[in-house]
Amino acid sequence: MKTETMRAMCLIGFGGTENLKYCTDLPVPTPDDDEVLIKVAACGVNNTDIWTREGAYGEGVESGWQGENAFQFPRIQGFDIVGRITAVGKQVSPARIGTRVMVNPSIYADDGIYGAAYIGSERDGGFAEYTTVPSQNALEINSSYSDAELATFMTSYMTAEHMLNRAELSANETILITGASGGVGSALIQLASLRGARVIAVISKGKEAALKQFDIEGVVFRGEQEISSVIRKQIGISCVEVVADIVAGEQVEKLFDLLCVGGRYVTAGAIAGPMVTLDWRKLYLKHLTVLGATMGTQADAKQIVAYVAAGKIKPLLAGSYALDELIQAQRDFKKKKHFGKFVIIP
Amino acid sequence: MKTETMRAMCLIGFGGTENLKYCTDLPVPTPDDDEVLIKVAACGVNNTDIWTREGAYGEGVESGWQGENAFQFPRIQGFDIVGRITAVGKQVSPARIGTRVMVNPSIYADDGIYGAAYIGSERDGGFAEYTTVPSQNALEINSSYSDAELATFMTSYMTAEHMLNRAELSANETILITGASGGVGSALIQLASLRGARVIAVISKGKEAALKQFDIEGVVFRGEQEISSVIRKQIGISCVEVVADIVAGEQVEKLFDLLCVGGRYVTAGAIAGPMVTLDWRKLYLKHLTVLGATMGTQADAKQIVAYVAAGKIKPLLAGSYALDELIQAQRDFKKKKHFGKFVIIP
Repeated sequence: MKTETMRAMCLIGFGGTENLKYCTDLPVPTPDDDEVLIKVAACGVNNTDIWTREGAYGEGVESGWQGENAFQFPRIQGFDIVGRITAVGKQVSPARIGTRVMVNPSIYADDGIYGAAYIGSERDGGFAEYTTVPSQNALEINSSYSDAELATFMTSYMTAEHMLNRAELSANETILITGASGGVGSALIQLASLRGARVIAVISKGKEAALKQFDIEGVVFRGEQEISSVIRKQIGISCVEVVADIVAGEQVEKLFDLLCVGGRYVTAGAIAGPMVTLDWRKLYLKHLTVLGATMGTQADAKQIVAYVAAGKIKPLLAGSYALDELIQAQRDFKKKKHFGKFVIIP
Repeated sequence: MKTETMRAMCLIGFGGTENLKYCTDLPVPTPDDDEVLIKVAACGVNNTDIWTREGAYGEGVESGWQGENAFQFPRIQGFDIVGRITAVGKQVSPARIGTRVMVNPSIYADDGIYGAAYIGSERDGGFAEYTTVPSQNALEINSSYSDAELATFMTSYMTAEHMLNRAELSANETILITGASGGVGSALIQLASLRGARVIAVISKGKEAALKQFDIEGVVFRGEQEISSVIRKQIGISCVEVVADIVAGEQVEKLFDLLCVGGRYVTAGAIAGPMVTLDWRKLYLKHLTVLGATMGTQADAKQIVAYVAAGKIKPLLAGSYALDELIQAQRDFKKKKHFGKFVIIP
């Protein structure tokens, strides 16, 4: 069998976008025994691609999620892979060939719960024409959504679903969602509404129109309105049961103030900056629970696929780009003018 | 019926010990319909008595636990009341008269879980010859321990038990306990051992002898040893499942570093200072859970009484003082040379 070649965006080092090289003659990978080969139809762009490229997960050292030594160059990034299986390893049923799939990018540690590595980070991902993934990560999807639409979901929604599971959000509770116009934020809105919770969204002014399609109880403009007075005046409540926060930074202590006694704060990111200063008395005198989450479990991923298949969550596609336009997609992402997800179509 | 008088230590304002006045002619209180009158035999001294006197729970304002307006003067403090019921209200069975009791100082909010007020804080407590409490707060105890010994338990142990319940500490897990020579710290040691957990205690050097009576896997001298290297070298582990911390302050981020992926940090206090700065990435990338706890539930209190009755936890009595020696007891408490609990004998 002659080695076929493919195009991909290769990350060759930590740093700026100059480290993203458009490669046109990479060998198409061969699936290992328990893997499948996927012809990538679309792959979502995530904040984590940029942070990883910048080495921003390290402390005083450039690093990916799993530490400085776990990451090797060149690396093909891209978490949210959608496509069709075109070949399978020896241990995988050939019946899977031709299946349309969404990929759970998490490679779990032995406990089966926590991601030890990620497709698109510690192994090659979807910013390429082809990629291989463990068979169990390729989840069959039946949906009328387009490939680009399907590629808007997995990372953001499994992260959001895991956050809500960690916080045990239930019907009739109120949840405050920060960064609500972002990928995880808008996922949180839809998934919280599906549970019957009341949603309060914190967004930058100018993005409120995009939220009209959702079932939202209250909208707060970040930096321009005091959240506590908005929820008291607009909704008539003095506190919320759950805060889902991916912004962090200086506002965290104020978010703690908004929580009811026994409230839960869950986070999966710190877009506004990771250093947080808190008065610990707020934590223990109010019996708060603070939950850290990263990505989700296989069960979360399957839940998302089920929601998508049932049409219960809507894709929020902000734009599509060709493979060699990834740098432009990331630039547009960083402008934060969009609502929803950018997707690469290889 | 002529009004009998009693002696008590009355707190007349927020501030220094000059606000503690020895009163000798207070009327013995009359129990309300659902209350009992207790002749106080012993009452434990707690850190919270001092913090409340100093108004240290407020933010920029002197305040008790439940806010500046919930606290009224004069107030008789004292949480850990032990004694015998000498009179009952109309709705309480007279059969309770004569019963030896330990008092759960928590007055619960409507949910029955969170303390809305405390006996010894928002209502009068045990630094007096007599006190009234709701009948359900007076828990019958059968034990060969002395009154002073019984008065060492309730607040510290129900707080500790609640912390361990919040953290879901289970057998064969390892727990790191800070401030391990204090009231809550030593309670955590005993209660964690009862669950079959492995205990690592962080203490000030010089207090290690007192820990020898407990089943402890490792001892770390605070400020003199690096916890991570001690647990690696002495115990052969690289992380712990649970941290129970009542010290807080600057060390919190280092405690987060010690937690395994998915680890739980639980706190019920901040002796070293309430302001904590953290790198939020440690929280979410390691899937940590941070739990605030204050006091405990009625179930926790009953569990402690059951443990005491069964002789499963040992009293740690550091010293007894007469009622008019409370100020000296608090001074000795603040020296932090003791191990265990100071108790007032009215």
